[in-house]
Amino acid sequence: MANGEKSLRIGIAGLGTVGGGTLRTLRENAELLTRRTGCRLVVTAVSARDPGRKRDLDLGGLRWHEDARALAEDPEVDLVCELIGGSDGIALELVRACLRRGRPVVTANKAMLAHHGTELARLAESTGAPLGWEAAVAGGIPIIKSLRQGLAANRIVSVSGILNGTCNFILTTMRETGREFADVLAEAQALGYAEADPSFDVDGIDAAHKLTLLASLAFGGRPRFDAVHIEGIRHVSAMDIAFAGQLGYRIKLLGVARMTAAGLEQRVHPCMVPAEAPIAQVEGVFNGVVVEGDRVGSVVHEGRGAGAGPTASAVVADIVDIARGLRLPVFGVPASGLADHPIAPMTAHRGCYYIRLMVVDQPGVLADISAVLRDHNVSIESLIQRGRNPGQAVPIVLTSHDALEADMRGALQRIGALASVLEPPRMIRIERP
Amino acid sequence: MANGEKSLRIGIAGLGTVGGGTLRTLRENAELLTRRTGCRLVVTAVSARDPGRKRDLDLGGLRWHEDARALAEDPEVDLVCELIGGSDGIALELVRACLRRGRPVVTANKAMLAHHGTELARLAESTGAPLGWEAAVAGGIPIIKSLRQGLAANRIVSVSGILNGTCNFILTTMRETGREFADVLAEAQALGYAEADPSFDVDGIDAAHKLTLLASLAFGGRPRFDAVHIEGIRHVSAMDIAFAGQLGYRIKLLGVARMTAAGLEQRVHPCMVPAEAPIAQVEGVFNGVVVEGDRVGSVVHEGRGAGAGPTASAVVADIVDIARGLRLPVFGVPASGLADHPIAPMTAHRGCYYIRLMVVDQPGVLADISAVLRDHNVSIESLIQRGRNPGQAVPIVLTSHDALEADMRGALQRIGALASVLEPPRMIRIERP
Repeated sequence: MANGEKSLRIGIAGLGTVGGGTLRTLRENAELLTRRTGCRLVVTAVSARDPGRKRDLDLGGLRWHEDARALAEDPEVDLVCELIGGSDGIALELVRACLRRGRPVVTANKAMLAHHGTELARLAESTGAPLGWEAAVAGGIPIIKSLRQGLAANRIVSVSGILNGTCNFILTTMRETGREFADVLAEAQALGYAEADPSFDVDGIDAAHKLTLLASLAFGGRPRFDAVHIEGIRHVSAMDIAFAGQLGYRIKLLGVARMTAAGLEQRVHPCMVPAEAPIAQVEGVFNGVVVEGDRVGSVVHEGRGAGAGPTASAVVADIVDIARGLRLPVFGVPASGLADHPIAPMTAHRGCYYIRLMVVDQPGVLADISAVLRDHNVSIESLIQRGRNPGQAVPIVLTSHDALEADMRGALQRIGALASVLEPPRMIRIERP
Repeated sequence: MANGEKSLRIGIAGLGTVGGGTLRTLRENAELLTRRTGCRLVVTAVSARDPGRKRDLDLGGLRWHEDARALAEDPEVDLVCELIGGSDGIALELVRACLRRGRPVVTANKAMLAHHGTELARLAESTGAPLGWEAAVAGGIPIIKSLRQGLAANRIVSVSGILNGTCNFILTTMRETGREFADVLAEAQALGYAEADPSFDVDGIDAAHKLTLLASLAFGGRPRFDAVHIEGIRHVSAMDIAFAGQLGYRIKLLGVARMTAAGLEQRVHPCMVPAEAPIAQVEGVFNGVVVEGDRVGSVVHEGRGAGAGPTASAVVADIVDIARGLRLPVFGVPASGLADHPIAPMTAHRGCYYIRLMVVDQPGVLADISAVLRDHNVSIESLIQRGRNPGQAVPIVLTSHDALEADMRGALQRIGALASVLEPPRMIRIERP
C-alpha cells in the first residue's frame, strides 16, 4: 500500500445490520484504527445473498462473491468476518475453510460456536489462525476480552448475565406497563426488537448459546450447549411481575454458569433478582454481565447487546487485536486442554424460590401446602395472601429459603395435585448475582 | 524448570497490601495461570522496606533485596512488579532501570504514570519492554484493557468515572446517614478506608491521576496531569446531599474526560448525577467507569477499586498478558504518536449547574438573583425555596439549563456580593454520564 504502511485486507461475509455496521466502522474510523494498530484496515471483498438489494453502503471497488465460501480462497483477503449467522451451513463451511488454510476469522456467530466451538478452536490452533468472537456475546460489551484477559488472574466463581435484549425489553415493558407477555411481544415485533418467529429469543435459546460460550471461557471447558438447562419467558405473567415488585425483586431472564460441588451448572431461566442489584437496573434492550472472581469479587459490565454500532464495535475490536498481532487461545486455554467438566443436573441446584399458587379461598389450604413443603425440606421465607374471597380463586405467593431443586419439584408436584389448587404452580428462581 | 515448561520469573517490589495480594494470587492460582498462559509464573525475588516486619506471607526461598532497584539487575528475574508507589523516588528509578534494559514491568502506580507517563512509554517502546498498568486505575475493573482493546474500534466521546473509593464511601455514608463530611471522614479513617492524611483522596488528586491516564488512553494523547481541573469533596455538605435527593440526583466525585470543540476537557469534581443512572448506583467503596464510544454507545463497568484481591487481580492480569506474549502500546498508540491535544479551559465548560444560596428571607431577593443570572445568560431550570422565616437565613436552591462555566462563575461572583446573600454560593455541576 501507499507509503509502505502495512495493511490488513478484510473480507466481509454477510451485509446485514452487523456487516454493514462493520464496513462503516472500518471506513469512518479508518485513520484512528491505523493509529491504534499501525496498519491500514481495508475492506477488499464482500459477500451477500442478494447482490441487487438496495443497501445504504458504497460497495464500489470491492470484490463481490456470490458464494461467501469464496472469501476463504480470495487472494486479496487476509482476514474474513463471518457475519452470516446460523449454526451450520455456509457460515460453518466458510469458517472451517478459512481456519484450515490459516486465515484469521472474526465472527459474531454464537450458535455456530456453541455447537461447534471445540472443533473450531482445535482447527484454529492447528494452523495458528486467530478466531475472534467478541461480538458473539453481549454485543458491544467487551465481556469476552474481560474474561480472557482482564480477569484472567481469577478462578471464576460464576458468570451471570442478561444476554438477550429482546427478552429484557419485553420484561421491562411488562413491568412498566403491567401488560401481559403476548401483548408486549407483539409490540416488540412491531418495533423490530423481536423476530416474526420469536422462539430463539423468548424461549431462551439465544441466551443459552451465549451462556455456553461464557461458561467455556470462564471455566476452561468445552462448550456444551446440550448441557444448558433452558426455560424462556413465555410463562412469566403480569401477576408474577407485580408480586416480584411487592417482594422487592425484578424478573430478568438470566444465564447463569457456576461451578458447584455437583459439577458445572449452566442455566437460562427467568429469575427474581433484588431490585437494588446492579443487574436489576439493566433495563430495556441493554445487556449486563456480572462476573464473580475469587480475587476481584464482582465485576459488572453493562451496555448495548445488539444493533449495528455496538456489534460492529466488537467485530472491529477483534480485527484490531489481530492487526496488532495478538494471539490468544479461543476459549482461554489451549483447545487440547479444554476440560470436560461434569455437568450438574438441574435437580442438584440449590437456591431460593418464588412460588405462586391459585387456590380456593377456604380454611385449611395453607396448612396442606405448608405440610407438603415441610415434608420436602422446603422452608418458607415469606408468604403473601392478600385479599379474601371465600370460596373463590385467590393467589398465594411464597418465597422459600435455600432449597434443593429436586425437593422443590417434588413439593410442587404434590401441591399441584391438591384439590384446592386450581392451576399448575408457578415457580421462579431467586438469584442474587 | 521441571518437565521443560516455560517459566516467567517475577520480582515484586513492595510487599504491602497489593504486593502481598499479588504474591498470594500467583501462588494460590498457579496451576490455573499455567493453564491459561502455557507458562509457570514464579515469584523469585522480593523487596520491601522492612525485612523484619511480620507479614502473613511465606517468603522462604525468595531472593530478598533491601534496595528495590536491585530487581532491575537481578539475573533471576524476568519481570518486575512495581508496587511501591509514589510519583518519583525509588519507584520511578526502578521502573526506568527495568525498561532501559528491556525488562517487562507491571505497575499499580498511577501517580508515577500521570507525571512521567510519556517518558516511560517512550522508554518502554525504545527497548520493546512491555509496561502493564491495569492496576493503576479502578482496581479490579479491567477498564484499561477495555479501552485499549475491547473498545478500540470507537472514537471515544467521553470517559467518566467514580475513581476513588474513599470519596465514594464518604459520600454514600453522608447520604445514607445525613451526617457531615468531617464526621464521616473520621469514621472512614477509623475503618481504614481513608489515610491519616486524607488529602490525596478527598481533595481529588488520586482521582485526577487516574483520570489523566484514562484520558490519555481514550484520546491517544500525552498524559497531562497538570491540565486536570480538580475539586475535592470537602465542601460537599449534608444539606446539598439532601437537596440533591429532592431533585432526583446523587452526589458523586466524578472524573470526566471529554473531547470538546474547545479542546480536551479533563475534570475531577463533585457532580450531581441522576439517581437512576447506572453510575449513581455505584455506592460505598466501589468504583465505576462509563465509556461513551461513537459506535458502542455507553458501556458501564463496576467493581471494587481497591484492596488486596481486586488490585492483585489487575496486576496478575497484566503478568498473564506478558506471559502470553501480548505487546501493546502503553497508551494505545505508539508513544511517538501521542497527540498534544489542546486543553479546554474550565471556563469553556458547558453544562447544567446546581446552586445553593443562603439568603435573608425578605422580598426582592429572588428578583435580584434572577436578574444577575439573566445578565449572565444563565437560565433557571428549577427552583426550591422551602420554608419561610422572614428576616432570617433560608436556603434557595436553583438548577440551571445548559450554561457556560465562565458565565456561571461571573453570575456567582455578583450574586455572592449581594447584601442579602449571607454565604459564598455553593455550586455543584450536574452530569449525565
